[in-house]
Amino acid sequence: MKVSLSVLGVAALLAQTVMAVWPIPKEMSQSNQNTVAPNAIVLGKGCGNNKILRSIVQRYSHLVSKESFLPPHLYNDKQTVQTSGALSHLTVNVKDTKTSSLGVDTDESYDLNIPANGEATLNANTVYGALRGLETYSQLITSNGKNAKVIRNTPISIKDSPRFPHRGILLDTARNFYPLDSIKRTIDAMSYNKLNVLHWHVVDAQSWPIESKLHPELADKGAYAPNMRYSYNEVKHLIEYAMERGVRIIPEFDMPGHTYIIGLSHPEIMSCLNMQPDWDHFAAEPPSGQFDITNPEAAKMAKDIINEYSKLFPDKYFNIGGDEVNINCWNESKKVQDYLAAHPGQNVTTVLQRFYDEIHKQVVADGKSAMCWEETLFHQNYLPPKGTIVQTWIDAESVHKTVAAGYHAVASPWTSNYLDCGHGAWLSNSNGTSWCDPYKNWVNVYQYDPLTNVTKPEEQALVLGGEVTLWSEQSDQYSLDTYLWPRSSAHAEIMWSGPTDPKTGKHREPLDAITRLHGQRYRMLDRGIESVPLQPLWCARNPGNCSVPPPAKKAPAAEAGH
Amino acid sequence: MKVSLSVLGVAALLAQTVMAVWPIPKEMSQSNQNTVAPNAIVLGKGCGNNKILRSIVQRYSHLVSKESFLPPHLYNDKQTVQTSGALSHLTVNVKDTKTSSLGVDTDESYDLNIPANGEATLNANTVYGALRGLETYSQLITSNGKNAKVIRNTPISIKDSPRFPHRGILLDTARNFYPLDSIKRTIDAMSYNKLNVLHWHVVDAQSWPIESKLHPELADKGAYAPNMRYSYNEVKHLIEYAMERGVRIIPEFDMPGHTYIIGLSHPEIMSCLNMQPDWDHFAAEPPSGQFDITNPEAAKMAKDIINEYSKLFPDKYFNIGGDEVNINCWNESKKVQDYLAAHPGQNVTTVLQRFYDEIHKQVVADGKSAMCWEETLFHQNYLPPKGTIVQTWIDAESVHKTVAAGYHAVASPWTSNYLDCGHGAWLSNSNGTSWCDPYKNWVNVYQYDPLTNVTKPEEQALVLGGEVTLWSEQSDQYSLDTYLWPRSSAHAEIMWSGPTDPKTGKHREPLDAITRLHGQRYRMLDRGIESVPLQPLWCARNPGNCSVPPPAKKAPAAEAGH
Repeated sequence: MKVSLSVLGVAALLAQTVMAVWPIPKEMSQSNQNTVAPNAIVLGKGCGNNKILRSIVQRYSHLVSKESFLPPHLYNDKQTVQTSGALSHLTVNVKDTKTSSLGVDTDESYDLNIPANGEATLNANTVYGALRGLETYSQLITSNGKNAKVIRNTPISIKDSPRFPHRGILLDTARNFYPLDSIKRTIDAMSYNKLNVLHWHVVDAQSWPIESKLHPELADKGAYAPNMRYSYNEVKHLIEYAMERGVRIIPEFDMPGHTYIIGLSHPEIMSCLNMQPDWDHFAAEPPSGQFDITNPEAAKMAKDIINEYSKLFPDKYFNIGGDEVNINCWNESKKVQDYLAAHPGQNVTTVLQRFYDEIHKQVVADGKSAMCWEETLFHQNYLPPKGTIVQTWIDAESVHKTVAAGYHAVASPWTSNYLDCGHGAWLSNSNGTSWCDPYKNWVNVYQYDPLTNVTKPEEQALVLGGEVTLWSEQSDQYSLDTYLWPRSSAHAEIMWSGPTDPKTGKHREPLDAITRLHGQRYRMLDRGIESVPLQPLWCARNPGNCSVPPPAKKAPAAEAGH
Repeated sequence: MKVSLSVLGVAALLAQTVMAVWPIPKEMSQSNQNTVAPNAIVLGKGCGNNKILRSIVQRYSHLVSKESFLPPHLYNDKQTVQTSGALSHLTVNVKDTKTSSLGVDTDESYDLNIPANGEATLNANTVYGALRGLETYSQLITSNGKNAKVIRNTPISIKDSPRFPHRGILLDTARNFYPLDSIKRTIDAMSYNKLNVLHWHVVDAQSWPIESKLHPELADKGAYAPNMRYSYNEVKHLIEYAMERGVRIIPEFDMPGHTYIIGLSHPEIMSCLNMQPDWDHFAAEPPSGQFDITNPEAAKMAKDIINEYSKLFPDKYFNIGGDEVNINCWNESKKVQDYLAAHPGQNVTTVLQRFYDEIHKQVVADGKSAMCWEETLFHQNYLPPKGTIVQTWIDAESVHKTVAAGYHAVASPWTSNYLDCGHGAWLSNSNGTSWCDPYKNWVNVYQYDPLTNVTKPEEQALVLGGEVTLWSEQSDQYSLDTYLWPRSSAHAEIMWSGPTDPKTGKHREPLDAITRLHGQRYRMLDRGIESVPLQPLWCARNPGNCSVPPPAKKAPAAEAGH
């Protein structure tokens, strides 16, 4: 039985030090008492007038009261918890209750104090700071394995704030459709991980699932089905739902490439529509199709789209795509070539730059800043207006190049952050791998830091954060949670807490993180997020027992005791 | 609009020839009429006395009446279906209604005749032939996109029977637990794909989730939790549930390796229990632990397990594992070495062979035949009794070697059939790949044929079929459907129909199969199986438009018309 005891010993030891808070707070001190958790969350003086704050507190009150959760690493010593005190309630104080706006500048910091007895307090400058603090608070409450709820390791003092203001997930709802409920569930999960940006890649070549009031024909012809589209009312509801959970929605309307679907209703403004069978000469994937950038009606359509949807989506940022433009599409278009022949001095590059200029100006005219993919800057040599966020995905050096050029950067490198990858090629007749294989496991995600090679403080300040992406060629509502969670949690901790402990400067090792990550995974399950297991449950319950072994030593001669 | 028309043209053309039956029947002729589907399934004379047959017919009557399904490749021409006749009902005739036993010899053949008018008939020798025929029948019924149900391409005549008698899925319920409902759902899905063996890898090192009446301590100490175990009643229910769906359950109780969990209650009969941190010196994965094969009490426990569970599970086959035995475990055990020192002439190999002999004899004594992993034969040089099924997974040559040695073979090569692979290493501190990466996509699965390199008819006859496997280190109920489907469907077609059309001898190309496979995937969704998409829905609706392009040709100068 020596073995079992030693296993229990390790778990008990870890229970002293590992609280299953994910992402880990910036500063956290704890002690060695266990305290009965409070039954109530109350709002401090003057806080009741903020509607969003009231809904947040109501939601967490409900969550905490119904949840009875024990992280797996505490399973083996659940019988041993003795409480030495009790908390009456948690008081939430918010300094600025007049505004509830949510943006890249929102202050999400909070202080949480949990004594071993008496009253716990959460102080924040904004409602969203309070939201983050309540999430932390909810994660500190564990079951004692029976009926009581306990906060372990009290007194606890936490001072927390995020490392990056932009902590996102990209969801592609065009290759395959996601019902509203699955997007709402994703937003729930994001808030459990303090992620705050849903980059909604709404449309793409394959479908146009969102209602347009200006051009109803886009969804009428482009949605997969009448029940596979998002109405204005649904989008507004989703935006509000997300805001109440501290999640901004930044829509992407990708152009001028990835636009075949517009050609179903407007073929006259398009080039290279669904070229077969050599679609790869014209596009990154089938069906091919790009705006005919020489046609003023195409620019008009692009601006209409920006104009319409920048009103529907309140966020300050509007993503206009700009990735994977294929020059062959225009080089081999008769209409484009006729235009160029009639306009000496112009070429595809100058016309494309003019097109970018028009759409970027439209974004600014609509009172927004643009987000766009890195190709705009690095492949097309177009310089968007300052204030544009450039999203990098191709090259490890792109973040540094972006900020060196004076632009804001958001990092989602395919090499670590593309959560759809690793399922092989999806073309009908391929048994091969995909360009973006292999699968990015949670450690790959966890070990990517956007600040790698960005050393100057003024350049670091331009890095706003990062995103993990779920492109949906091989995914839809049925694989959504499986592909996103808990790998997006790994991303969330790097975005919120960073790769090093700010106090000790020590690098956060996966071996230390995984115990908490298991906790987060199993807690998410309890909250309805169908996150996948990273290991056998046995490993989650027995921290340190499922690690890569040390370098092989020479096998000793028959050891005693086994 | 030329493009859209040509897309419609392709889809319309394919609609003439592609019926979404999966797996594809052995012989199938069809014509060019469309017929209103019958409303009723009735049993032929004398068939009503078989209880299982009655339950099968009742189930399919219900399924067909509630289902209204249109395969995605018919989406674009759904308006064009004109019916020219109607069917009154389907009559099911079964020759032998006296027996309902299900085994490796069960006759699953059937004939299905669907005229353009009048009465459809299904003839089979056994209730399970009728079951397979009813599944085919259910798949022939499609919606017309409105309210009516239509059988397209009538008259249809089908003569069908399986290529292999053993067409399986291995499910590991020990690394992580699967609730009964998720196993039942998997059995449902298996029957939709004419798979007929659930190889239930019940227990392993990490947990013992099944009740034992002889040794209750095994589950009391070894189940992950009281609500994470299968009672006798649940197992009996599951076996009956599976039998009604034509699925045999073959349990695996893996020994002498993979048995750490027995050590929680019986450490005295075990060797190398949870050796840390260098577990890899003793086992394929943590926690290490093997029966102490020199201890008669260990052999007694092994035989108790076989004895008990061979009574609970009625199938003729009983799987005793035998994979991944690690000799270091015994070479470095003091007790084992003491025994060998006291017994000159014996060594680890002879003792292991004696252990195998005892457990194989127990299987035979209990009236069963054994299944075991290929290592028993190829790594330990042990020759099990003739009639044993050897399951191969390691080497491409193993199937041939197994049948050349005169044993039955079931093939589940990791290189194509391990559906858990491709998610990277799962050890806590690894960012690397796993030995079994990459992910096996559906084409990998589809292109594996167990008869590869087995050419002699008498050797081919020994190949019973194959399995895909879901080992569960990184999977549980939440990822189950995602990881199994539709890739197990690809396996099912190779098992049932084989890689070539028996009429034309033509190899079945993934490009031809994927249209039907999409149909099967979307039909499974309608039936509650949360199968993942292989492609954007656009591709499923537009067959032929998402293929690997032909080899690059020189880009032509500005083509006309785009």
